[in-house]
Amino acid sequence: MAKNLVVGQSGGPTAVINGSLYGVISEGIKSKDAIGKVYGMVNGIQGFLEDHVMDIEAELSPEKIELIKTTPGAYLGSCRFKLPEDLSDPVYDKIFEQFKKYDIGYFFYIGGNDSMDTVSKLSRKAEELNYDIRVLGEPKTIDNDLIKTDHTPGFGSAAKYVATTVREVTLDANVYESKSVTIVEIMGRHAGWLAAASVLARKYENDNPLLIYLPEVAFDEEKFLKQVEAAFEKNPNVVVCISEGINDGNGKFVCENASDVGVDNFGHKMLTGSGKYLENLVKAKLGVKVRSIELNVCQRCSSAMLSKTDQEEAIAAGRFGVQAGIKGETGKMIAFQRKAGDTYEIEHSLEDVNEICNEEKTVPVEWITDDGSNIAQAFIDYALPLIQGDVEIPMENGLPKFVYRK
Amino acid sequence: MAKNLVVGQSGGPTAVINGSLYGVISEGIKSKDAIGKVYGMVNGIQGFLEDHVMDIEAELSPEKIELIKTTPGAYLGSCRFKLPEDLSDPVYDKIFEQFKKYDIGYFFYIGGNDSMDTVSKLSRKAEELNYDIRVLGEPKTIDNDLIKTDHTPGFGSAAKYVATTVREVTLDANVYESKSVTIVEIMGRHAGWLAAASVLARKYENDNPLLIYLPEVAFDEEKFLKQVEAAFEKNPNVVVCISEGINDGNGKFVCENASDVGVDNFGHKMLTGSGKYLENLVKAKLGVKVRSIELNVCQRCSSAMLSKTDQEEAIAAGRFGVQAGIKGETGKMIAFQRKAGDTYEIEHSLEDVNEICNEEKTVPVEWITDDGSNIAQAFIDYALPLIQGDVEIPMENGLPKFVYRK
Repeated sequence: MAKNLVVGQSGGPTAVINGSLYGVISEGIKSKDAIGKVYGMVNGIQGFLEDHVMDIEAELSPEKIELIKTTPGAYLGSCRFKLPEDLSDPVYDKIFEQFKKYDIGYFFYIGGNDSMDTVSKLSRKAEELNYDIRVLGEPKTIDNDLIKTDHTPGFGSAAKYVATTVREVTLDANVYESKSVTIVEIMGRHAGWLAAASVLARKYENDNPLLIYLPEVAFDEEKFLKQVEAAFEKNPNVVVCISEGINDGNGKFVCENASDVGVDNFGHKMLTGSGKYLENLVKAKLGVKVRSIELNVCQRCSSAMLSKTDQEEAIAAGRFGVQAGIKGETGKMIAFQRKAGDTYEIEHSLEDVNEICNEEKTVPVEWITDDGSNIAQAFIDYALPLIQGDVEIPMENGLPKFVYRK
Repeated sequence: MAKNLVVGQSGGPTAVINGSLYGVISEGIKSKDAIGKVYGMVNGIQGFLEDHVMDIEAELSPEKIELIKTTPGAYLGSCRFKLPEDLSDPVYDKIFEQFKKYDIGYFFYIGGNDSMDTVSKLSRKAEELNYDIRVLGEPKTIDNDLIKTDHTPGFGSAAKYVATTVREVTLDANVYESKSVTIVEIMGRHAGWLAAASVLARKYENDNPLLIYLPEVAFDEEKFLKQVEAAFEKNPNVVVCISEGINDGNGKFVCENASDVGVDNFGHKMLTGSGKYLENLVKAKLGVKVRSIELNVCQRCSSAMLSKTDQEEAIAAGRFGVQAGIKGETGKMIAFQRKAGDTYEIEHSLEDVNEICNEEKTVPVEWITDDGSNIAQAFIDYALPLIQGDVEIPMENGLPKFVYRK
């Protein structure tokens, strides 16, 4: 009798985290010889422990399953639940009791660094217990900061959102003749991939964004103000794009100069307000009209700016993962390797999840130019293929039609 | 010899202010018998005074003219320039010298309240001078606050953006099980039309946004906190939509309460919005996870969420205006009247611009329900036809293709 499959989602959503889910579900359902039932864990490993489990085929019509791939958010719900380092902690016994209860032989976890940490621990625990289960990680993060993969699903759509929105904000900023500064704050605490994608908005020489700052290079306020003044020579309306995590090079975030910051339950600092801080700085020091725009969660949940390439890759990674599981792979993350040559093409690989979790891939410093204020052509060549193609979203009564769990 | 036409744009852009421009330009070009050249004033009446004038057909290919209607921002540039009340001010002579220089017989100004004020003054001055020119106003404003018209071009697309984005933000907010509050700040200082449009995001009973607050009803912090707590009974993730202009009913904006919001390291007070203020309030008083999202200029410059109905109406209003000018009308604004009956249909009317400028249309208080925290079905019936239909945006290399003046 074929073992069952369970899939879960963890961490912050991306525009295609449900694309990966769709890939796993649809391939799981198709693989009748190898896989029995396809279950979803509601609210990740935390919900699984509380027995929140969904029998996908019993509860969802084929039409609803199709809608999953264009629905924002994490369809199964998410959690932020860090498993203990000590594999003898009783929580592991509870998880494996659940695996046993549902006769699970395949577990797929879709997420970023922290989710790969969960995959690592559960695959090691399974080995220790000699429990027959394949534990695999499906990558997702708009931050694009996972190592051993060319990029991560979710980055392409977020990059397309950022580039499109910055292009539109630039047109909005250009309408007046008087000097102005518009600061756009983009997600990314330690890795500036997404803020770098704002360079794709440029359409002609001296087009905005004229200045782009990433966390990979120390941010200096005096230098920044001089660079803004120099930018006015090119365009009276200067658009500046920053990563939320720009810092002084010694770990102090620019926004810490401004307001209280909290800490999430992984010990990560919760950031907000680097853009607002610079807005006040420019107003005080340069005396020009200035506004700041925080793209906020829209950059990870907009369905209108889905990249077809990103969505297709997310689905394909889900499917590839299921096939790898059937072949007996475990403790691995599905990764993307770009083939050499002029045409963009990727192939999948399986990477040891133990080497991936708790590591971060940042933007190569040689891709950051003009004294830390610009992005090199090499990044453009890297990112452009990832935002290609559009996805038609089913509409109903003038608004996008999504699928809901409740 | 046929007189020439000049068209200008003023105030903040909308997603379809260039649709109206396209309507005026294309109808002007087509009307060879009545109209000579079609000029654009660059940066509105202010640029016109500085002789920034564009000969549309000489400078723009037909392909570029077509692209105008899907390009965000104000293609001709904008200004905020209020003409003096005293019609004997010398600035009027300068403007009429410019009209003479370019042999202008038709002047179209696309804008909101302040632009209609310009139309009013210039049409009155023309009468005083017995100068043969037809001065007409083309309405635009995402705020939907012009009187004597069912609605204004720009509102439908902004409403579609707001409803879509709130639906997506809700899916993003729903991923975790623990209690959370998401506050979405929407444009509108005195009129809450756009924040009201967030009600369209709801898909099922007790779906978000669970609370909506407009400037038309006095905002009370204690009542608000009680309403948030009551909303948790329906959904652990509460999305609250507010107009930026919510106030205490005596003209004091909620954001003005933010005295203790924060000070940067120069001692400057950090200016903050109403959403950020309420975020801090909820965090302090209810102790739950809370974030605020300011939709900012994206709600007026997003091309991806253009309403086909809105765009077509903006273009049609531009064309109707040119025909009205040819028939000799002046000192009027092109307005929209909704026909009675079950099917949505509008017809144009010409309204005296003197009665429109400096007036504001707010949301009827009977459309605001549940002790100031909800929106009635009557509003939904009013707004739903305005967001219908999608516009295909020309794409190039994964991003929207727009037309640029420079």
